[in-house]
Amino acid sequence: MTEKDKTFMRRAIELSAETALVKRAGGVFGAVIVDKNGEILAEGANRVVAENDPTWHGEMEAIRKACKKVGSFKLDDCTLYSSAECCPMCAAAAYWAGIKKVYFAATVGDALEYGNFDDTMIYAELKKPTTERSMPAEQILREEAVAVWTRYKNMPGKVQY
Amino acid sequence: MTEKDKTFMRRAIELSAETALVKRAGGVFGAVIVDKNGEILAEGANRVVAENDPTWHGEMEAIRKACKKVGSFKLDDCTLYSSAECCPMCAAAAYWAGIKKVYFAATVGDALEYGNFDDTMIYAELKKPTTERSMPAEQILREEAVAVWTRYKNMPGKVQY
Repeated sequence: MTEKDKTFMRRAIELSAETALVKRAGGVFGAVIVDKNGEILAEGANRVVAENDPTWHGEMEAIRKACKKVGSFKLDDCTLYSSAECCPMCAAAAYWAGIKKVYFAATVGDALEYGNFDDTMIYAELKKPTTERSMPAEQILREEAVAVWTRYKNMPGKVQY
Repeated sequence: MTEKDKTFMRRAIELSAETALVKRAGGVFGAVIVDKNGEILAEGANRVVAENDPTWHGEMEAIRKACKKVGSFKLDDCTLYSSAECCPMCAAAAYWAGIKKVYFAATVGDALEYGNFDDTMIYAELKKPTTERSMPAEQILREEAVAVWTRYKNMPGKVQY
């Protein structure tokens, strides 16, 4: 842990305090994304309540803003500093973005203890097969969806992603 | 599976075809959210490439739009129809939103076979403790983050979430 790491994390923690204690916009979560040159690309904070958006976590906002800034859906050489351990949604978003490394401060256990957040439950649910989760999932019409995939796979000049 | 379920899923599959084959905006993924009265609240499609946003999955767009429409970050009595099995990001978002039930058509295995998508890898990664993942995570400054949580917990009139 370098002094720069501490500075970035303290900014993430400051964002977590600002959004929950000052703006009262959501939970105590802030995040910062730093590029390979050690510069802050984007910041984010939880605004679930203010925006009526369950996906507006600090990490999600930071990832989306950083991607807009660099003009890519990949952040391959970037580091994410989050005031708390990523929930599964944000961790998966970081994988999709190709984030190189994550620093976190509070744990999902802390979020549960101090804020009654469901991260731990969701992590446990995602370890189960789709069809055995408490949010039941049922498969229907697979052939019709796969028919579109087949057309996509064979499409010349298809979008690469 | 009712006829209505088939109709909603076919709309999700139609959105998946439109975004990937016609608009060329992203992967073959579409989603629809239906309320307790059996009406479509919102639709979404993958636009990761067009928007330079790795979080712009079909389910995410549908959840965010449905929440805006009902003016809540909860969709408790709603059902999600997705042309493909949710990735961990979208599944976790559905949990956060309190979605009641999910229908899906293609599997994460199909997405890997036809589109080379990383869902399976991310599911496997999320089963590991944060610090043992291929995207390494390191904890720093926990006490400073928890100090904010403590202030939040004791704050009168704090935002409920």
